[in-house]
Amino acid sequence: MRTDKRANDEMRLIKITDDFVKYPEGSVLIEFGETKVICNATVNESVPPFLKGTDTGWVTAEYSMLPRSTHSRNVREAQRGKLSGRTHEISRLIGRSLRSAVNLEMLGERSIILDCDVIQADGGTRTASISGAFIALNKAVKKMIERGDIEQSPVTEGVAAVSLGLVNDELLLDLNYEEDSSAQVDMNLVGTESGKIIEIQGTAEESPFERGKVSEMLELGFKGLEVIFAAQKKISDF
Amino acid sequence: MRTDKRANDEMRLIKITDDFVKYPEGSVLIEFGETKVICNATVNESVPPFLKGTDTGWVTAEYSMLPRSTHSRNVREAQRGKLSGRTHEISRLIGRSLRSAVNLEMLGERSIILDCDVIQADGGTRTASISGAFIALNKAVKKMIERGDIEQSPVTEGVAAVSLGLVNDELLLDLNYEEDSSAQVDMNLVGTESGKIIEIQGTAEESPFERGKVSEMLELGFKGLEVIFAAQKKISDF
Amino acid sequence: MRTDKRANDEMRLIKITDDFVKYPEGSVLIEFGETKVICNATVNESVPPFLKGTDTGWVTAEYSMLPRSTHSRNVREAQRGKLSGRTHEISRLIGRSLRSAVNLEMLGERSIILDCDVIQADGGTRTASISGAFIALNKAVKKMIERGDIEQSPVTEGVAAVSLGLVNDELLLDLNYEEDSSAQVDMNLVGTESGKIIEIQGTAEESPFERGKVSEMLELGFKGLEVIFAAQKKISDF
Amino acid sequence: MRTDKRANDEMRLIKITDDFVKYPEGSVLIEFGETKVICNATVNESVPPFLKGTDTGWVTAEYSMLPRSTHSRNVREAQRGKLSGRTHEISRLIGRSLRSAVNLEMLGERSIILDCDVIQADGGTRTASISGAFIALNKAVKKMIERGDIEQSPVTEGVAAVSLGLVNDELLLDLNYEEDSSAQVDMNLVGTESGKIIEIQGTAEESPFERGKVSEMLELGFKGLEVIFAAQKKISDF
Amino acid sequence: MRTDKRANDEMRLIKITDDFVKYPEGSVLIEFGETKVICNATVNESVPPFLKGTDTGWVTAEYSMLPRSTHSRNVREAQRGKLSGRTHEISRLIGRSLRSAVNLEMLGERSIILDCDVIQADGGTRTASISGAFIALNKAVKKMIERGDIEQSPVTEGVAAVSLGLVNDELLLDLNYEEDSSAQVDMNLVGTESGKIIEIQGTAEESPFERGKVSEMLELGFKGLEVIFAAQKKISDF
Amino acid sequence: MRTDKRANDEMRLIKITDDFVKYPEGSVLIEFGETKVICNATVNESVPPFLKGTDTGWVTAEYSMLPRSTHSRNVREAQRGKLSGRTHEISRLIGRSLRSAVNLEMLGERSIILDCDVIQADGGTRTASISGAFIALNKAVKKMIERGDIEQSPVTEGVAAVSLGLVNDELLLDLNYEEDSSAQVDMNLVGTESGKIIEIQGTAEESPFERGKVSEMLELGFKGLEVIFAAQKKISDF
Repeated sequence: MRTDKRANDEMRLIKITDDFVKYPEGSVLIEFGETKVICNATVNESVPPFLKGTDTGWVTAEYSMLPRSTHSRNVREAQRGKLSGRTHEISRLIGRSLRSAVNLEMLGERSIILDCDVIQADGGTRTASISGAFIALNKAVKKMIERGDIEQSPVTEGVAAVSLGLVNDELLLDLNYEEDSSAQVDMNLVGTESGKIIEIQGTAEESPFERGKVSEMLELGFKGLEVIFAAQKKISDF
Repeated sequence: MRTDKRANDEMRLIKITDDFVKYPEGSVLIEFGETKVICNATVNESVPPFLKGTDTGWVTAEYSMLPRSTHSRNVREAQRGKLSGRTHEISRLIGRSLRSAVNLEMLGERSIILDCDVIQADGGTRTASISGAFIALNKAVKKMIERGDIEQSPVTEGVAAVSLGLVNDELLLDLNYEEDSSAQVDMNLVGTESGKIIEIQGTAEESPFERGKVSEMLELGFKGLEVIFAAQKKISDF
Repeated sequence: MRTDKRANDEMRLIKITDDFVKYPEGSVLIEFGETKVICNATVNESVPPFLKGTDTGWVTAEYSMLPRSTHSRNVREAQRGKLSGRTHEISRLIGRSLRSAVNLEMLGERSIILDCDVIQADGGTRTASISGAFIALNKAVKKMIERGDIEQSPVTEGVAAVSLGLVNDELLLDLNYEEDSSAQVDMNLVGTESGKIIEIQGTAEESPFERGKVSEMLELGFKGLEVIFAAQKKISDF
Repeated sequence: MRTDKRANDEMRLIKITDDFVKYPEGSVLIEFGETKVICNATVNESVPPFLKGTDTGWVTAEYSMLPRSTHSRNVREAQRGKLSGRTHEISRLIGRSLRSAVNLEMLGERSIILDCDVIQADGGTRTASISGAFIALNKAVKKMIERGDIEQSPVTEGVAAVSLGLVNDELLLDLNYEEDSSAQVDMNLVGTESGKIIEIQGTAEESPFERGKVSEMLELGFKGLEVIFAAQKKISDF
Repeated sequence: MRTDKRANDEMRLIKITDDFVKYPEGSVLIEFGETKVICNATVNESVPPFLKGTDTGWVTAEYSMLPRSTHSRNVREAQRGKLSGRTHEISRLIGRSLRSAVNLEMLGERSIILDCDVIQADGGTRTASISGAFIALNKAVKKMIERGDIEQSPVTEGVAAVSLGLVNDELLLDLNYEEDSSAQVDMNLVGTESGKIIEIQGTAEESPFERGKVSEMLELGFKGLEVIFAAQKKISDF
Repeated sequence: MRTDKRANDEMRLIKITDDFVKYPEGSVLIEFGETKVICNATVNESVPPFLKGTDTGWVTAEYSMLPRSTHSRNVREAQRGKLSGRTHEISRLIGRSLRSAVNLEMLGERSIILDCDVIQADGGTRTASISGAFIALNKAVKKMIERGDIEQSPVTEGVAAVSLGLVNDELLLDLNYEEDSSAQVDMNLVGTESGKIIEIQGTAEESPFERGKVSEMLELGFKGLEVIFAAQKKISDF
């Protein structure tokens, strides 16, 4: 049994606090157990240079951790003057995942920026970020419809993400920090409500893994995604 | 009357949530009305180079705002690769203010770093930061005593900070964003429980002000500080 | 049929030039069709701080593209003063992939740095980099054995990487730039000679894809890896 | 008595060399005793983005110290690639102080940049900078009138700044480096010729100070400002 | 005799590989013995700000070394976030040298950027870069004529560069790394086909040298330049 | 005749103010006509890493221009966060030139840093910097002897630098800004008192120049150097 008494295929408690910050067009605090991330969506009436004049919109994301969201304090990236490779990698993953579920032409020449700021990290910050950012995005879209910016939602379907891994030769869903630290294989799965894959990333942390494990992992992952979709729907339908 | 119906000498509602993040040695969420700041204290067993070998400790602070803690989104300082002048100035003020109330020799060769991250900004973020950081610092000190790092608290007395200003020729306490934006004079006062001054900063925003106003301002400021000290004491005695 | 007349499950011509640069401990030029990458391995008698005193080694990588390795010229990252997210992401992938096939304790407190510099890019630069860097690494290891630094090779088995994708609803192996640009799904697979997975990354570029496609993709990918392993073995046995 | 034999309420010798550098629209070398600062004013026919199209001007400042303006050499900020917090804080103070005495609408869409470069530092570099920059600004304004850029001076009244402090329980005016280093309380006062306050900053360096001291300090400070206004007037009337 | 058996006035073997990279408007790999540099020319339909609207073009260059082009690995400048002084100095020299042989007005408002990336360094990287970059430039110009961008070549005459030096009191042509390391005087000469000087840089590495040596050096240098011009002409007439 | 009525082979008025700043071990203000540079020498009891433990010293230099030392204001390099290529190039030239006249072993494991800060620029800032820095260096050396750090001066002979150029087909000595801007050929010559060359840099600004001109230029240059040596000797013998 897992240290927090969960079954191997059981998610941690998911909690989503609506309207966590008052200024953004969409804002939630999402919690996967002890992992807490503020997800804010900002609508900008501009697009990156490569989209100027194309009538197409953009969705992008920035991920960051508070210095003391972890056991020991990290130096601020603003102090060091540059983003770490990990920050870049996760920010790109969040942005890419959400773009997959948005019809960018229906958005018009506008950007939606998702800021995912981790307040407390206990494993799964990137999957919580994606799952929370999707709600913030969806709420921002509703506000744009209300304001008359767009007529219909460009969101094509629900997006969520979950981590899973092989720990002591057992497949576990939604790893906490302790489990993640000792995982032999680590997978992040971003999927849609209709059961499709947006992104799959599986990494052998210590030694290569059998090809056959992949479908087992996918099955477990989609089981977790269903729980997240249910939690997301309590805050905002999509 | 003020737009939020307060009397001129009335503070906004102060709320302090204890143990907001689980990892830091001290952590609170402090709210001055709609202004919300996470204050985390980290104890480090090292000091800056200029104090090495002196048996003296250090207290320092870093202030930051989430990109969407304000009406419009700010570019992350980590993205731009450098801290703004404003961030530098406020970080230095917080550190300086807290050092004034700590006997650094009693601390031993250790640093306490106060991270003040603004989640939502509605005026007074620097004064809320100082007031919250003092509690986080005090809690970290208690943990150090518990762990046997030090025997006695090096904190000499309570520290809090408040803003005030001249708005439409009236002296107002604890300005919110709207009031702050139209203030003729803006003052930040950092003081101690025994009624002494740690820092006084008064700035004419539009046009220079009469010298005589200063003592009136100090009186109003200390009135506000008393309310903050009372709120701080509910969380942690000092 | 593909524009370059290959069958869907056919790799481009792989060419590996041995000892491309004379100074590094291992150096090859690897070509996947028109994609050309210089892979240099450097052995350093030091490790990153977190490994000091642990008797454990490290393998890391840095990926870069010459400004005019692509159709239009890219501004140098050294000019902009920072690495792009893409560069970070690929550098991390290469390092992680190679570490999976090296027993870091057998390496002793030494680092091997793999520099992958893309001279000409026509799709698959990251998979060519991993496949070439493995040979450079292997050659550096042999040199270390020759010099008596270590007695036995810490390389556990062969590593190679291949890209594949869904283009116009057909699964294609080893995408060139043109195919990559129009891929619906894009997958990078890093695997071992014994048929195990080190890393799998599959991304829906336009719209989410069916879960069932994954095993089909894995099969195609491993078919490609076998061709690369054969090409690698002509330069250096492992 | 003070080490340089001044009375407690006595300023150091103030010397202002006119037209120190030939290119700027206004240029002086100001000396407060051994503290020497070059103050250059540049008129630019542009304003920061937030003022574009508002018919309003801007006044800003940049402060810097030569590497060997102090006892030991400081690393150049251009070498380190970033400005220190202290530099930011002082630059902002200078800019803010001068803006208070300029009618920015009368300036039109133009900027005046004040560069304050410290050649030799012996305490009071920020107050000498403000006092010298005001003269450079005033001279630049006269040149603009001569050139026909503007018809009337937008300068509303004279600005000067002085430091003072509590040293060995005595209030001293215009601290030199040695006095500044041992001050218990350190105050900087920016005021106008008509006796009003632009900025007051008082800091307890060691231990908090009595609120009652503030008016005593203000009185002493304005005494010093009068001496500076007299020195400024010898160079340029305002 | 020299360690590589050359006569004192003998160049190393010069090899120029045409069309080394397929995308640039001009691309060669140039080798001076073991020194190898990729020279790519990019034509941009824009000019730096100071030339906008002047109907005048620009030629500029960027020089860089691969991390392991030398005996020990250099940290990437992109990693350190800034270019070294040496990189700046050489990039400026290459650009300046080529501009001297181009009629910038005939170029129209276009830029040609020369990227010189050193793959393997064995002395004379800057002179090989200039000599190779001139060919890449010349090829780019021919492509512009073919495309109808310009009617005539703005190249006025051939440009090449060579190093020479005083080693053990003997004047040597085209120093390799070992010779360069022990040179008493080091000279770089950039000249034209008609025997004129574009740039002469002579540096006393250890102790100052006799003025009379200069004409001897020039004679030797131009002897080397002739060999380079002959090699260049095999690739592209000018 | 030249615009400032000098003969073609005439230097501008050279003025050297001794002890310009009080803290450095050596400090002068040097003026070549309207060009003014502060040259400060700092002695550090440490050397760069590559000299640690070699009993050898180092001499290095940093050159910088005040933002408004020129007709229009330059953005501070500290603001932009990086040094320009020109700054790097000149700093390196100054350091290299002075090292040529210092016996670094006699210096012991110490560094002398020369800071050359241009206050006003009217052509020839690099040659004035070298000529002034040599005096500051020489004065610092004398102070080291006085303090007993070293017994004998490691300075081997006097160093000075001068610019010259071909303007309207006439060879002119010591160009001012206006002449420099229209020069066809621009040369900087660093030489010693005994008539030897430390560095010669000649650049064709517009079109290549005849090889024969070089000895004429050298003769004119050394004529100028003699005038500078005489001016230097009035301040400090060497």
